[in-house]
Amino acid sequence: MRKLRRYLYLQLHIGHTPDGRLTRLNLALIIIILAAIVVAIIGTEPSIASGREGLTFWVEVFFGIVFGLEYCARLWSVTEKRGKAPAWKKRLRFALSPLGLIDLAVVLATLSPTLVTNAAIFRSLRIFRMVVSIKESRFSHALKQLQRAMMERGYDFLVIIAIAGTVLLIAATALFWAEGDVQPEAFGSVPRALWWAIITVTTIGYGDVTPITPLGKIFASLVALSSVMLVAMPTGIVAAAFSDAMRRHRRTMAQKPKPQESEDHDT
Amino acid sequence: MRKLRRYLYLQLHIGHTPDGRLTRLNLALIIIILAAIVVAIIGTEPSIASGREGLTFWVEVFFGIVFGLEYCARLWSVTEKRGKAPAWKKRLRFALSPLGLIDLAVVLATLSPTLVTNAAIFRSLRIFRMVVSIKESRFSHALKQLQRAMMERGYDFLVIIAIAGTVLLIAATALFWAEGDVQPEAFGSVPRALWWAIITVTTIGYGDVTPITPLGKIFASLVALSSVMLVAMPTGIVAAAFSDAMRRHRRTMAQKPKPQESEDHDT
Amino acid sequence: MRKLRRYLYLQLHIGHTPDGRLTRLNLALIIIILAAIVVAIIGTEPSIASGREGLTFWVEVFFGIVFGLEYCARLWSVTEKRGKAPAWKKRLRFALSPLGLIDLAVVLATLSPTLVTNAAIFRSLRIFRMVVSIKESRFSHALKQLQRAMMERGYDFLVIIAIAGTVLLIAATALFWAEGDVQPEAFGSVPRALWWAIITVTTIGYGDVTPITPLGKIFASLVALSSVMLVAMPTGIVAAAFSDAMRRHRRTMAQKPKPQESEDHDT
Amino acid sequence: MRKLRRYLYLQLHIGHTPDGRLTRLNLALIIIILAAIVVAIIGTEPSIASGREGLTFWVEVFFGIVFGLEYCARLWSVTEKRGKAPAWKKRLRFALSPLGLIDLAVVLATLSPTLVTNAAIFRSLRIFRMVVSIKESRFSHALKQLQRAMMERGYDFLVIIAIAGTVLLIAATALFWAEGDVQPEAFGSVPRALWWAIITVTTIGYGDVTPITPLGKIFASLVALSSVMLVAMPTGIVAAAFSDAMRRHRRTMAQKPKPQESEDHDT
Repeated sequence: MRKLRRYLYLQLHIGHTPDGRLTRLNLALIIIILAAIVVAIIGTEPSIASGREGLTFWVEVFFGIVFGLEYCARLWSVTEKRGKAPAWKKRLRFALSPLGLIDLAVVLATLSPTLVTNAAIFRSLRIFRMVVSIKESRFSHALKQLQRAMMERGYDFLVIIAIAGTVLLIAATALFWAEGDVQPEAFGSVPRALWWAIITVTTIGYGDVTPITPLGKIFASLVALSSVMLVAMPTGIVAAAFSDAMRRHRRTMAQKPKPQESEDHDT
Repeated sequence: MRKLRRYLYLQLHIGHTPDGRLTRLNLALIIIILAAIVVAIIGTEPSIASGREGLTFWVEVFFGIVFGLEYCARLWSVTEKRGKAPAWKKRLRFALSPLGLIDLAVVLATLSPTLVTNAAIFRSLRIFRMVVSIKESRFSHALKQLQRAMMERGYDFLVIIAIAGTVLLIAATALFWAEGDVQPEAFGSVPRALWWAIITVTTIGYGDVTPITPLGKIFASLVALSSVMLVAMPTGIVAAAFSDAMRRHRRTMAQKPKPQESEDHDT
Repeated sequence: MRKLRRYLYLQLHIGHTPDGRLTRLNLALIIIILAAIVVAIIGTEPSIASGREGLTFWVEVFFGIVFGLEYCARLWSVTEKRGKAPAWKKRLRFALSPLGLIDLAVVLATLSPTLVTNAAIFRSLRIFRMVVSIKESRFSHALKQLQRAMMERGYDFLVIIAIAGTVLLIAATALFWAEGDVQPEAFGSVPRALWWAIITVTTIGYGDVTPITPLGKIFASLVALSSVMLVAMPTGIVAAAFSDAMRRHRRTMAQKPKPQESEDHDT
Repeated sequence: MRKLRRYLYLQLHIGHTPDGRLTRLNLALIIIILAAIVVAIIGTEPSIASGREGLTFWVEVFFGIVFGLEYCARLWSVTEKRGKAPAWKKRLRFALSPLGLIDLAVVLATLSPTLVTNAAIFRSLRIFRMVVSIKESRFSHALKQLQRAMMERGYDFLVIIAIAGTVLLIAATALFWAEGDVQPEAFGSVPRALWWAIITVTTIGYGDVTPITPLGKIFASLVALSSVMLVAMPTGIVAAAFSDAMRRHRRTMAQKPKPQESEDHDT
């Protein structure tokens, strides 16, 4: 019995096995979560979902049961977690932790038929849940390194945000001034012009809102040319931060090929 | 009294405290300036501002008073600035300096109710003012390093501008020649075609103006393919200049962790 | 006779000559393949093809005969390939190999007049065939190095795909939630909103689908700003992988300037 | 007299003075050429040009006379060029060289009033002419270094072109197959679909042509995602080549601060 509990604990927490690899149950869980996400996405499309309410219902019930069982297994096996607290305390602590509450919400939402229409929102919670559930795995290590590399360049990003914010504000004010009277719907206020400025500076350029006066086009041309500079600054920093993070991650992984279950995480 | 003046002087000039950190008053001023900018932006949106003229009026008055007090405090405490000139001379010099005049203009514009509709333009001055007010801070050091790194590559930018200008001109002339008769509104002259060329080469691509003849599309395809090259050239330079500037800034900051108030700046 | 067969074998397999250069027949074949592709592309354009059915027919027949002769020559000369198997076995093995079947399909499709309308699809097979036919050449060496450089960064790409997938899903869900009722055609389901999210995050920005509510525009602005970060991450990795691959390729080429026909490839 | 001729020769060939700097006459000529380009651009805009035919005429005549004088001065002073050929042979050689003929064409076109409407095309020749005229200057040295850095990576660009060409062709064929019947105007042939593919892969995204069927959108999404990779590859190469070229240029300039008139160029 204790062995089964220990086994479940290791299986449900990805990357906790001694060799750090994914086990079959790990893979099965990941595939079921991905499948649930895909079903949730497709289920929102009326041209596919309408007329298949029965099928959708039973698929929902299936995922609800699987996630319900997973929740129960987690609640039962959480006592294997390090710490001297009594078993009921560990379980209560998990049940009231943010992750435990999200897990419960997902299960209840998936199982209650009246909430099926909103299941997409609940199951998009599942994405975050999954990201968190792989927090203990090797994958999460890379994300932590990325976060650290980004943090180290926090000041650089602050400088970029300040420059970008100033350029966006000047661009929006200039177009508000030049085209506010001609196109009040598009440039009638600074917040409206900001929508145009953001879509232009990021070089997306929908074209739903474009200047039509010569002066507006001259201002917009200057904004367009400066967008090349503005996009280049974060590109350099992000690209460097990302390759730094990946290099570090690979180095750390090479040093300790078999991560011990020495560090225990909540959930 | 002198102590208070000294205290105000240090508080109003960000980064002038011995340890170079932001004090509470520094933070409060920054937050008020940011709030004034946000209010100014939102205040231009008719769907939010209309019907709230009273509220807007009093918020304007509040910011006007705050900026007025700040102006007076600056004018009074400027005597603490280094230099042997008598107090009145220092004050007059500040009042007639560009920054002093901008400050005064902002205060008067914010306080005069008849100018409220144009306050957005006056308060967008505030953004520049703020950028200048943090000129003395650590933040400005990073900007100076960025400016220096850009300057060092001035020749590179000149080469890029020459290449980009030539490509833009050739692209505009080609489309003017190919589509000028078919779409006179969009390509009827080289300046009109330049609008299309700039929006295309920066990869924004609004789509408000697109070639429709086969020949125009062939030319535009060549311009589109060359845009990848043209955008790549400044990207490499800007990215390198930015990370250079940030590396230098960090190195300088590591060497002198506690900047002395040794350098005094105007305002 | 054997000499001719040997000669043909070396000619049809690009880069198999002792000095690794392209021979005249190599070049002629490459030019014919490129010409066949161009003709296939242009042949699908009704405004050019209609009324020229006769010309198209004879051009098709010409390419069909050339590719037919090439196929026969390959089938005949394949016995020169290394290995102790008898000649008929080598030929059968080639005829039943994927490349041999594609070759046969291309020839038959080009020659059968009733299939001319679908020749574009068959001849687009020719592109893959050509890529494969130059697999033995120096060019393929560079592609292999590129593939290897990409593989080495496989984990990095997995991290990027996970981050990008999460951002795309959150963006689509947010817009589905904000604009689903207002624009059901564009944002009425998560898959529909995903189309918008992909076109926005890659900074293409067609503008066929854009948010129109203030909330949708705020969400879209955040997605637009994060797109700069998202595009920057693969840019850094891909750019580094590509220049790595090219550096390695050049180094290997410098070491062995005259590749021997020591390695034999299938086909 | 000989002194004047020598002086003119050095003045008209930018960067031929012993210290390699721009002289006053150099600057004046550059400014006049730039002014002529700006006038030629603006002169094509009907809303500005119409009603000002008189002014335009005299400005044209002015530039025509200046360029005519420049041409005569070049023709006269070209005898100062290195070489033992007699003076008339040097002059004839210049007059019949491509640059000499372009120069003559520009002068004649600018001076002949009946050709004023086409002057834009003739004067856009002026841009190339100017680029060539600064070929002897320091600026041209940077361009040569850039060309060399690009050439060294010629093989890399060939690989990129092959990959990009294959992706573009596959994308166009896929959309032709998926949307050819639904939107014959936009995707009714491979060349038409190529227009969409090029505008999408370069991330310009006009939106004049977009897929409307679910299958077309799925294909387009894959193309959109691969565009990030495709744009990243040349970005890395071009950025590296450009910064290489600029580094080399700066190093060479530092070594020989005073370029001798040792190298003579045609023109």
